[in-house]
Amino acid sequence: MLPVRLGKVALIGVGLLGGSLGRALRTRDCAREVVGFARRTATLEECEETGATDSTTLDLAQAVSGAELVVLGTPIGEMGSITRRLLPFLSPGTIVTDVGSVKSGVVAELEPLVESVGGHFLGSHPMAGSEKTGVRASRADLFEGAVCVVTPTSKTPSDVRTRIRGLWESVGGRVLELSPGDHDVLVSRSSHLPHVVSSALTRLVLDPARPPMQRDLCASGFRSTSRLASGSPEMWRDIVLANRTALINALTEHREGLADFQRLLEAGDAPAVLEYFQEAKQQRDSWCPPDPPPSLRQSLPRLPLTPNVACLCLP
Amino acid sequence: MLPVRLGKVALIGVGLLGGSLGRALRTRDCAREVVGFARRTATLEECEETGATDSTTLDLAQAVSGAELVVLGTPIGEMGSITRRLLPFLSPGTIVTDVGSVKSGVVAELEPLVESVGGHFLGSHPMAGSEKTGVRASRADLFEGAVCVVTPTSKTPSDVRTRIRGLWESVGGRVLELSPGDHDVLVSRSSHLPHVVSSALTRLVLDPARPPMQRDLCASGFRSTSRLASGSPEMWRDIVLANRTALINALTEHREGLADFQRLLEAGDAPAVLEYFQEAKQQRDSWCPPDPPPSLRQSLPRLPLTPNVACLCLP
Repeated sequence: MLPVRLGKVALIGVGLLGGSLGRALRTRDCAREVVGFARRTATLEECEETGATDSTTLDLAQAVSGAELVVLGTPIGEMGSITRRLLPFLSPGTIVTDVGSVKSGVVAELEPLVESVGGHFLGSHPMAGSEKTGVRASRADLFEGAVCVVTPTSKTPSDVRTRIRGLWESVGGRVLELSPGDHDVLVSRSSHLPHVVSSALTRLVLDPARPPMQRDLCASGFRSTSRLASGSPEMWRDIVLANRTALINALTEHREGLADFQRLLEAGDAPAVLEYFQEAKQQRDSWCPPDPPPSLRQSLPRLPLTPNVACLCLP
Repeated sequence: MLPVRLGKVALIGVGLLGGSLGRALRTRDCAREVVGFARRTATLEECEETGATDSTTLDLAQAVSGAELVVLGTPIGEMGSITRRLLPFLSPGTIVTDVGSVKSGVVAELEPLVESVGGHFLGSHPMAGSEKTGVRASRADLFEGAVCVVTPTSKTPSDVRTRIRGLWESVGGRVLELSPGDHDVLVSRSSHLPHVVSSALTRLVLDPARPPMQRDLCASGFRSTSRLASGSPEMWRDIVLANRTALINALTEHREGLADFQRLLEAGDAPAVLEYFQEAKQQRDSWCPPDPPPSLRQSLPRLPLTPNVACLCLP
């Protein structure tokens, strides 16, 4: 697919994802103009310093009027209210998308709203987050090789689908289409559950009531497993509440998995403990092959998505 | 402390840790001679190719006779049997240490054995493991900045303590003395629990019964939290069984922590969910400050251990 060439793009909320999208579009010359809207002047200054936008404004009407594409980068909990505020300024045919981590509720709420003024909403979830936040952490190459989920519904016009696919492919993403509900169930396991687990583990190990030497005995293994706990608490509150039902199911299943392992340990069942770890290693290694030597890293082929292959972790 | 200068050092089992110790001692000229013992010729060849040893042998008597220091790098489950086999060849006064991840059982078994032939056993646990294994993954700088726990008992002579402290400090480690029992409780939380959690999470997400798109939706967050699952199943079987009691307590506590969070989620208690994540982030960030810009990384001071400060994750 050829890269898209867009007219005016409005970034509503310019954080890590919005800022990286702006930088990627500008670097690759995929948009005539990238305008950033934020509530705080400090954020707008950061947009300009990092090169995330061509121009910035505190005025929502000015940001969205005449835009071909509006990208919502606000917290999930605020998507409905910000969309209601910007509806009056949307031109007919404008495409609105978002970069949120949960899709069912957002799509159900925003699709009819945007349609009511002659525009089109199609949800996106570029899976390129980080525990870092804000436009200062943004990078023009953030989406390179990242899976970018788009969640069309039966109402999505095919040209809108093509356009949004093109948007993410133009910035290096690998597009996967899923229904909003399927997306939410899948990410509850692969993304939201790991965040909760990482936070729970951190709270257990670094509980201030522990002896001070406890933290001295935290090494690289703990560092990896606890990394996600450093993510934005506000963002994650919104995510887990928005995806509550699926996440509760995933949590229940995970707690049962841990209880299963604990029973093997209590029984001192060495062969079953070995098998438990062997299966986990086999699954993890087949998803993510061991790192190649540095000399080979650049020349590795990029693998296609399911159903052919599915390794996301090659450079 | 000045670096130690050792005579002959025998590495009994040369994997990631033993091999890295050999390379570090040889690079820094801290030993007159480093001899590697292994059961397979292929391992001995790898020792020579990687520079982990000055010489290698399949003969245990030849490896340990005349050694000032013997370092056991075999799996935890084999430490007792290999020690019994090498006892007849130990010279009086020889110091024996190990690099295992669990200490109580090993110390209780090996200390009297080695003492019975006029030697001294002092347990070590250099916290520099990895999901990679084998002498090919070894590095001369593996212990630089790593916490190296030594576990003296009331029977450990003070000069033996000084010598083993000096060993780890000479290769760049930061020595922490703990009783074997305290060590095991602390690492059950900070190291062994994360391994089990990482494996359980991997099995849940990458279960072959999932739809194929499940693995496409695994991104960098899952990559970090699942990394430990790629570790050696045999090594981890031995570790979790050797530290069973402490790990069962840690697992029980972690499952309760997850159940607490699940209750908040079921209740839709947004303020409590926020506080849960805020506390985790604060604890994690204060253990591990956000990465400094690359330009600053080399000049950061190395911080002292508890009780003064305890950040292990600066470069």
